[in-house]
Amino acid sequence: MKIALDAMGGDHAPEVTVEGAIDTIKEYPDIEIILVGDALRLEKELKNKKRYPEERLSIKHASEIIAMDESPSYALRRKKDSSIKRAVELHKDGEAEAVVSAGHSGVAMATALFILGKAPGVDRPAIAASLPTLKKPFVLIDAGANVDCKPSNILEFAYMGTAYYRAVFSVEKPRVALLSIGEEDTKGNELTKDAFKLLKNSELNFKGNIEGKDLFIGDADVIVCDGFIGNVVLKLSEGLAEVIMKMLKREISDISTGRLAYLLMKPALRRFKKKTDYAEYGGAPLLGINGTCIISHGRSSAKAIKNAIVVAANLAKAGLHRTISQELSKIKETISLDMPALSGVSS
Amino acid sequence: MKIALDAMGGDHAPEVTVEGAIDTIKEYPDIEIILVGDALRLEKELKNKKRYPEERLSIKHASEIIAMDESPSYALRRKKDSSIKRAVELHKDGEAEAVVSAGHSGVAMATALFILGKAPGVDRPAIAASLPTLKKPFVLIDAGANVDCKPSNILEFAYMGTAYYRAVFSVEKPRVALLSIGEEDTKGNELTKDAFKLLKNSELNFKGNIEGKDLFIGDADVIVCDGFIGNVVLKLSEGLAEVIMKMLKREISDISTGRLAYLLMKPALRRFKKKTDYAEYGGAPLLGINGTCIISHGRSSAKAIKNAIVVAANLAKAGLHRTISQELSKIKETISLDMPALSGVSS
Repeated sequence: MKIALDAMGGDHAPEVTVEGAIDTIKEYPDIEIILVGDALRLEKELKNKKRYPEERLSIKHASEIIAMDESPSYALRRKKDSSIKRAVELHKDGEAEAVVSAGHSGVAMATALFILGKAPGVDRPAIAASLPTLKKPFVLIDAGANVDCKPSNILEFAYMGTAYYRAVFSVEKPRVALLSIGEEDTKGNELTKDAFKLLKNSELNFKGNIEGKDLFIGDADVIVCDGFIGNVVLKLSEGLAEVIMKMLKREISDISTGRLAYLLMKPALRRFKKKTDYAEYGGAPLLGINGTCIISHGRSSAKAIKNAIVVAANLAKAGLHRTISQELSKIKETISLDMPALSGVSS
Repeated sequence: MKIALDAMGGDHAPEVTVEGAIDTIKEYPDIEIILVGDALRLEKELKNKKRYPEERLSIKHASEIIAMDESPSYALRRKKDSSIKRAVELHKDGEAEAVVSAGHSGVAMATALFILGKAPGVDRPAIAASLPTLKKPFVLIDAGANVDCKPSNILEFAYMGTAYYRAVFSVEKPRVALLSIGEEDTKGNELTKDAFKLLKNSELNFKGNIEGKDLFIGDADVIVCDGFIGNVVLKLSEGLAEVIMKMLKREISDISTGRLAYLLMKPALRRFKKKTDYAEYGGAPLLGINGTCIISHGRSSAKAIKNAIVVAANLAKAGLHRTISQELSKIKETISLDMPALSGVSS
């Protein structure tokens, strides 16, 4: 199983990407990695590394890097030799079975979509992000690929999220919920009310609406929403968790017994941080494209890169993109997904 | 200053509403309260209370209570003698200068809007919720009144939020930000992109887009969004804060030194909880109606009820609803708010 890694993508690239790649091939003997990026820089990075299976690590040169403030359209048009573009091309040409990037997520998404194309039967590819809860993680889809959606897109996200959850957690019928502003069937905006009807009439294990306050309880496996709200939810959760920890630390340091309390609970804080750190989750796949592409957090650690590569390898092995394509093609034959879009908010 | 309190509204009514009312009149000699609800029940509750200025507390009987699972339209149509309806009527008739309810928020909103009506110049009244940050609280508007919005509605929310923030925090030019999925001017969905242009061309102190991850940093005073996403953000923040505390407690109790650490930091946890507890914030006003209506959290404590009554009294004294009406009427004379709505998501 050969994976193309955008070695220049991410806040701490190429140090952590190279480290993550080496950790992966040491631990997983069936994984090979192509580091894509500035060959000189990567060779220099590899020189410091000792004792790793060199035969499963290669370098593919790419001269350009995408900056975090570049627009996807600019990057696609102008940077013909970027590490992310070359990595996706390796996948397209069959030289790699999946691609992983912790770089500019908008550019990675656009590049993967442009080069690999949509999988047959899929209207809108979407990002599936995993988030921790009190129980098992849940999958939030769409976490940012589609900012304006039709009800039929939401249904599509639910099918793709279900296939993904099944592949990752081996749950045959994951519980699907629709993010809304009340649990009752009739609560929501125009988009979610129409999406609700589609989900209700589908063969999915649809449990109804879920409110923001219940998202992290862990009673739903796949939570669907449009990509605008999904992205707000994803970033808000990350930002809020950090702010809460800061506020709590400030309160603790303000009391006389705080220093001791802090020392005593440090191992617990570390474990908590690990469980809630998005970087630990190994990135989010862009589902619905003609291939396997995992987009990781820009702040990814070497471990996060490793996790992302492993997820990419597993999804590629399972042929998830083909399963999604088959399922959605079948569904589109039997029902007309576009019907209720007439009353949707954006078409 | 006379306030009508929906004494039967809230998870712990009428115990906490009566207690909150008594605490208020004890502390604020210029506030009078009319407890609206089941007179027998309220009299019984008052019997246990000692030494309070009885001359500033009266009861107005209302025979019906709204259950939390009733729809606003059903409640409005069928429950002619509900405590919230009678409370709003007292305000409408000039017998009270403001109304406070911790009951069913949808019903309270619909009742206030139906009986008091929109303030002249206002197209869409909206909920302004205050949320804590690392610095000062910020105001989120709309937090749930309008699930489908036009760009011009978002601009209106910004004006109302600015007037509210100015009245409460005495800041002449509060910083306004638009909730979106990236800081760059061009990021967003159809609705926010059009709203961005309106905000940019307004006389407001508009600072641009704000991402979910930066909401709680405290660099914006008024954050505007449509009521669907605002409600998701509000409930998600509340739910996530609770889940994080639960996860953290679990981690702490799992380590050997956890019990001691927990004991040592208990005062800090209490203070943290107080700072982040939405019930402490005294409720959210429904801005843009012909009057002053504060909607409190269903879980409101007596202190939260007191805070809500004090906020109601201050806003009524400041004549905020008249200021909002004047400002928005003036703006509508000079610019056509409806122009960019043509490309908006819902009209």
